[in-house]
Amino acid sequence: MKVKNQNYQTVWMQASSVFMIEQNLLPFEFKIFESINYLQTCQAIKTMIVRGAGAIGATAGFAMAQASIEASNLSKEKYILFLNKALKNIEATRPTAQNLFMATSRVYKKALISRELAILEAQKIADEDAMACKKIGEFGNKLIKPNYKIATHCNAGWLAFIDYGSALSPVYEANKQGKNIFVWVDETRPRSQGARLTAWELKNENVAHKIIADNATAHLMSQGQIDMIITGADRIAANGDTANKIGTLEKAIAAKYYGIPFYVAAPTSTFDKNTATGKDIKIEERSQDEVLYQTGLNKNNKLEKILVASPNSEAFNPAFDVTPVELITGFITEEGISR
Amino acid sequence: MKVKNQNYQTVWMQASSVFMIEQNLLPFEFKIFESINYLQTCQAIKTMIVRGAGAIGATAGFAMAQASIEASNLSKEKYILFLNKALKNIEATRPTAQNLFMATSRVYKKALISRELAILEAQKIADEDAMACKKIGEFGNKLIKPNYKIATHCNAGWLAFIDYGSALSPVYEANKQGKNIFVWVDETRPRSQGARLTAWELKNENVAHKIIADNATAHLMSQGQIDMIITGADRIAANGDTANKIGTLEKAIAAKYYGIPFYVAAPTSTFDKNTATGKDIKIEERSQDEVLYQTGLNKNNKLEKILVASPNSEAFNPAFDVTPVELITGFITEEGISR
Repeated sequence: MKVKNQNYQTVWMQASSVFMIEQNLLPFEFKIFESINYLQTCQAIKTMIVRGAGAIGATAGFAMAQASIEASNLSKEKYILFLNKALKNIEATRPTAQNLFMATSRVYKKALISRELAILEAQKIADEDAMACKKIGEFGNKLIKPNYKIATHCNAGWLAFIDYGSALSPVYEANKQGKNIFVWVDETRPRSQGARLTAWELKNENVAHKIIADNATAHLMSQGQIDMIITGADRIAANGDTANKIGTLEKAIAAKYYGIPFYVAAPTSTFDKNTATGKDIKIEERSQDEVLYQTGLNKNNKLEKILVASPNSEAFNPAFDVTPVELITGFITEEGISR
Repeated sequence: MKVKNQNYQTVWMQASSVFMIEQNLLPFEFKIFESINYLQTCQAIKTMIVRGAGAIGATAGFAMAQASIEASNLSKEKYILFLNKALKNIEATRPTAQNLFMATSRVYKKALISRELAILEAQKIADEDAMACKKIGEFGNKLIKPNYKIATHCNAGWLAFIDYGSALSPVYEANKQGKNIFVWVDETRPRSQGARLTAWELKNENVAHKIIADNATAHLMSQGQIDMIITGADRIAANGDTANKIGTLEKAIAAKYYGIPFYVAAPTSTFDKNTATGKDIKIEERSQDEVLYQTGLNKNNKLEKILVASPNSEAFNPAFDVTPVELITGFITEEGISR
């Protein structure tokens, strides 16, 4: 997708380095981060230089490919021990995103054979991700009528994948076709991926939009200002229960109350057949500082971190929630729309 | 209530000045603002030096009393013209809070007779507000069982009234009785009155609590972590539909979905018999900058304003929403609990 009219993907591998858009600096600064080994790539996932289900998956795959390169001079036995350790380290970076485990395991299996196959497999995962998202856009677009006002939560745009995005891919397709759509962008506290990343993406792609506080969505629904909601997913259980960014559940409940279609857009790689229901999905708890502090541009155009809550009070910060399948109108995948 | 173990009220009048806690500086700085004339008091309401239904009402009453003092040397005819102008100016400060219109009109009627009666009436309104909130605490406390986890939205504590608060008054009473309660404090974006004011109040009163992003409430409900919700109200229509801080509606819908009791605590002065239903309540739209910027303490302990959203994107900022009466379990007023 476009950044200042130039095309980019979110993550890519070249020789033994993994390159990625530094998403912690967005939307204020556009910078490419180069990770030269797999542990650095793990750290990049952990510190959210790269984030979003698909992008995390592809990056984890690349990290496993990096590990196989790093270990390639070792004896067969030590090579496997190194890979096992790497598998554990990569899987420990973020606990919720299904794509991470899928990608790491696929590349690990190839790495057991050779590093060349590992690199090819990692690239294949990234390519599949971009292709799946493109198709999600084509299928999802069919649900969007002209002049629709669409709400989305968090960032399931191209920055969360390799390209196109999941929830935003239908939006981009509809916009390309001149459907005169409008997007309500949930701020998505505490990390504000909506206000920072989704708004930035939509601006770059010339999609009409406005940012709202997360608290405003139900109000807009009550005023007839939202025609449909599309969000992404971090993991979809076998029964359809969907883990996604904290707050998704609240939007889904409100959408049900007002009879507004609520769609989850995700590649089939996000579906986890080994997890029976939402109750079995582990919810990541992140640092309370994400709630208590905010980072942004000060008046001198420098990034500054400020305390935005009462000093000496603590916060609780679950990163995801689980939306029960009964609240979901349908899933938009690269294979079509399922209800 | 207590600030550093000393007792304070939110707003008070002395001679022709109105004194108020500067709530824009809280929780980082505790400072008293002195307004020496009614226009300055209007400005204080507008810029939210004072905010919250009851406190706005009492301050508006004091402003009208100030106007009657300022006009007291004018001829009878000019005195009335001045009062009429003041009525208009005070009513134009904030459009949603019922208490503002109630208080202004009560003091205006007395001011037509004499400034002395106006001052007495304004003080009476403030005293009634504190007394009503105290009683709300006593009635509301009966709904709270030992070890309850209570969620609240925005700040309907003593800072929003003259003393005690509405939604927090039952919490303070239950805490005083040693019920071992815990409060989940919604951050309440965009102005973060929860994270800033409610958390600050609870800390000063030694009530166990944690701040959460507004997005986390439904998740906590789904995990059985919330036993009841109590919020305040800015205006309650004749049929029970309730205008309150943006986001209240979303919490009420989620509470209904999970079968969690949702109570609105408010003095009877917040009930507006002249407004038939929620559809007739005007919703204030505030500056988009409240969403796009955040203010807080930087690392040098100075207040700093930073941009927290993507540059060049706009925001939409409705300040209130309307919760339909069907979502409200009951109202806690100074007269008791009505369902």
